[in-house]
Amino acid sequence: MKPSATLPTARDKLLFTPGPLTTSLSVKQAMLHDAGSWHFEFNAKVKWAREKILEVAGLSSDAGWETILLQGSGTFGVEAVFATCVPPNGKVAVLANGAYGERMALMLQHLKIDHVVLRTPQNTPNDPAALDHALAADKTITHVAIVHCETTTGILNPIAEVGRVVKSHRRDYIVDAMSSFAAISIDFAAAGIDFLISSANKCLEGVPGFSFIICRRDSLVGCEGYARSLSLNLVDQLKGFEKNGQFRYTPPTHSILAFEQAVKELEYEGGVTGRGGRYRRNQETLLEGMKQLGFRPYLDPAVQSYIITAFSYPDTEQFSFDAFYRRLSDKGFIIYPGKVSRANTFRIGSIGRIFPNDIDALVSAIGSVLNEMGVKMV
Amino acid sequence: MKPSATLPTARDKLLFTPGPLTTSLSVKQAMLHDAGSWHFEFNAKVKWAREKILEVAGLSSDAGWETILLQGSGTFGVEAVFATCVPPNGKVAVLANGAYGERMALMLQHLKIDHVVLRTPQNTPNDPAALDHALAADKTITHVAIVHCETTTGILNPIAEVGRVVKSHRRDYIVDAMSSFAAISIDFAAAGIDFLISSANKCLEGVPGFSFIICRRDSLVGCEGYARSLSLNLVDQLKGFEKNGQFRYTPPTHSILAFEQAVKELEYEGGVTGRGGRYRRNQETLLEGMKQLGFRPYLDPAVQSYIITAFSYPDTEQFSFDAFYRRLSDKGFIIYPGKVSRANTFRIGSIGRIFPNDIDALVSAIGSVLNEMGVKMV
Repeated sequence: MKPSATLPTARDKLLFTPGPLTTSLSVKQAMLHDAGSWHFEFNAKVKWAREKILEVAGLSSDAGWETILLQGSGTFGVEAVFATCVPPNGKVAVLANGAYGERMALMLQHLKIDHVVLRTPQNTPNDPAALDHALAADKTITHVAIVHCETTTGILNPIAEVGRVVKSHRRDYIVDAMSSFAAISIDFAAAGIDFLISSANKCLEGVPGFSFIICRRDSLVGCEGYARSLSLNLVDQLKGFEKNGQFRYTPPTHSILAFEQAVKELEYEGGVTGRGGRYRRNQETLLEGMKQLGFRPYLDPAVQSYIITAFSYPDTEQFSFDAFYRRLSDKGFIIYPGKVSRANTFRIGSIGRIFPNDIDALVSAIGSVLNEMGVKMV
Repeated sequence: MKPSATLPTARDKLLFTPGPLTTSLSVKQAMLHDAGSWHFEFNAKVKWAREKILEVAGLSSDAGWETILLQGSGTFGVEAVFATCVPPNGKVAVLANGAYGERMALMLQHLKIDHVVLRTPQNTPNDPAALDHALAADKTITHVAIVHCETTTGILNPIAEVGRVVKSHRRDYIVDAMSSFAAISIDFAAAGIDFLISSANKCLEGVPGFSFIICRRDSLVGCEGYARSLSLNLVDQLKGFEKNGQFRYTPPTHSILAFEQAVKELEYEGGVTGRGGRYRRNQETLLEGMKQLGFRPYLDPAVQSYIITAFSYPDTEQFSFDAFYRRLSDKGFIIYPGKVSRANTFRIGSIGRIFPNDIDALVSAIGSVLNEMGVKMV
C-alpha cells in the first residue's frame, strides 16, 4: 500500500465537492468546546445565528422573517418544509432537472402529498412558461418547489422568473438554495420566495449538522396542525426557539459553535459579494485550466453556476474514473463523481475554503494524473 | 456584569446534564479535519463505527444484526423507527412514565399511527403485568415501545421483564436506550429487542450529530415500503450503506470523526463495564454529597439509575432555581432543570467525561451557593 493511504498526511486533502467542504482551521477550532444545550450562553449563540442568517439574506425579523434551524442534513430541511407547510389537500408542482428535484418528488411520495413534476433535460434550466401553463390548468396546485443551483450538473435555475409566475398565480414558493445561499445574491421580494432552505456546510463554510429554513413568521405559523412528522415539525421548532431560545431536541452544539465562527469569516470576506467573487474566480480558473487540458464542460456557459462544474469524461479507453479519482486522492485532491443520467461526467466544486491557487494546484495534478494514466485528450 | 459571564474562561464549564455532555479534548480534536462524505477513507470510518456499535452491544453483523446511523438527534432516530417499521395498519403500545415516553406518543400522533399509552406515575417503573393484559386484550397491537432510562427522573425501566411479555405475545419490541447504551449492559437476546435506538452524544461520549438504530437486518428489510418519510427511511438508509458505504444524504462528517475517537476511548476505559463503573461511582459520590447537604433524591434508590438524578427543591422561600443555576454556572458548573410534572426538581447528570473528583467539586460549589443564597436545608 502507498504511504498516503495509511499514514496521516501533513495536511488534509482538499475537497472540491458540493459539501461537506474544506473549512478554515479557525472554524474547526471553534468546536474544541462543549456547550450545554439548555444553557443561556449557548442559546444566545443560537439566537445570534438565526438573526445573522436573515442578515445574509438581506432580511430581518423586524420585517416578519424568521430562520428555523433544523438538525440533520439539507434534505431534512427540504422535507420539513413539505411535511410542515403543505395542507392536507395541498399539491406541489416540482420543477426538476436533476437529482435534487427528483428527490423532492420522492419526499412528496413518502409524505403522501399530491404532486406533479415538471421536467426539463438536465442541461436545460426549468421552464417558467411550462409552469405558467401548468398553474393555469391546475388550480389545485398550492405550492411550487424549485432547486436554485442543481448540483447534479451545476446548472443555475431562474428562480426570479419562475417566482414571478408562481406569484402571478398566487401560489406558495419553496426554493432549495442549498448550494447557492451566501454565495449568490438572492432577492427574496423580487422572487416572491415564501420558504428557502439551505445548510450550514455549504457556502457559509460551516460544518454539517443542521439545515435552516428562512420564511415569513406568519406563513409558517399559519401551517399549524399540518405537520406529518414531529422531528420535522417546523412550527413546533419555531415555538421552541421563541419559548426558551432552545432547540426542541438535542442540537448539534459543536456545529453551532463552528457556525458562529463561519459567519464571522463570511463577514470578514465581504459577505455574499466577497464570497461569491472568490468562488467565481475559482470557477473561472478551473474552467480555463481544464479547457487547456482538453476537457469539455457538460453545460453551456450561459447556464453554468460558479458553484460546481461537471466535465465530460475524456473520450478514450485509457480513462477510468475510479483510477483517476484515486490517483488525485493520492495527490491530496478529492473531486466528485458525476450524477448526470445520460452522460459520463465527473464534477469539481469551486466552493469552500479554497482559492484560485488551490485550483491551479488541482489542475496541475489532473494533468500529471492524465500523463500517468496515458490518457491523451483529443 | 461579572467577568465570568463575558470573558472566555480558562476551561469550559463542566456539564452535569443528560447530554450533550462534556467530552474529552481528544474527541473534540478529532474534529480538526474535513472529510469528504463520498471518499473511501471516510466510508471506511462509517463502516468501522457501525461494526463497533454492534460490538458494544454484544452483537455482530455475522449474526444478522445491523447498525443504521441517522443524521439528527436521538428523537429523529426514535421517530425513524416508527416511521419506517410500523406497517400501515400497525398499532404501537407505548409505556410511559416521563417526557420521553410521552414524546413517543406525540411522534405516533404526527405519523398518524394508531397507538395506546400505558402510563405509570413518573416515580414508578413501567408495569409488565399491565402490558400483559393490554396485549392479551388487543390483538391489533403490533409493537411495544419503551424508554430504558427515562431521563425525566433518571428512573430505570425493566426492559428485560417487559421484553419477555412482549415476546410471549409475539409482538415487536422497540427500546429507546438513548441515555443508557454503552453504560448499562443490555442483553438483546434475553430482552427480545427488535429495534434499539441510541445516540452518539450520550454514554459513548461523542458529540451530537447523529443517532443510531440497532436491529436485525431481516426485520428492517421486511419493512420495505412502509416509510412515511424519506429522510427518516431506515430501509433506504441501510441500502445506502450497503450499496456504496455512504450515508444517502450529507452526514455530520466531523461528528463521525469524533465518534471514532470516542469509541477508542470507551475501549480504553474497559468498555461498558468500565464506563458504567465510573458513572456509578460518580452517581454514588453525588448522592452521598447531596444528602450531606440536606437534599432529597426524587426517586426511590431501588429504581434510580446511575445516569442522571433528580433532586427535590429545598423547601424554603430563599431557594430559586434560576438563581441557583446561574450561580453554579458562574462557578463553572452547568446542571439541568427538572422535568417532573408534579414535583419541583432539578437534575444532575453523572455521565460524560466527568469523574468523582468533578462531582466533589460540584457538590462543594452547591454548598457555597446555598450559603450565598442564604438557603438553610432542613
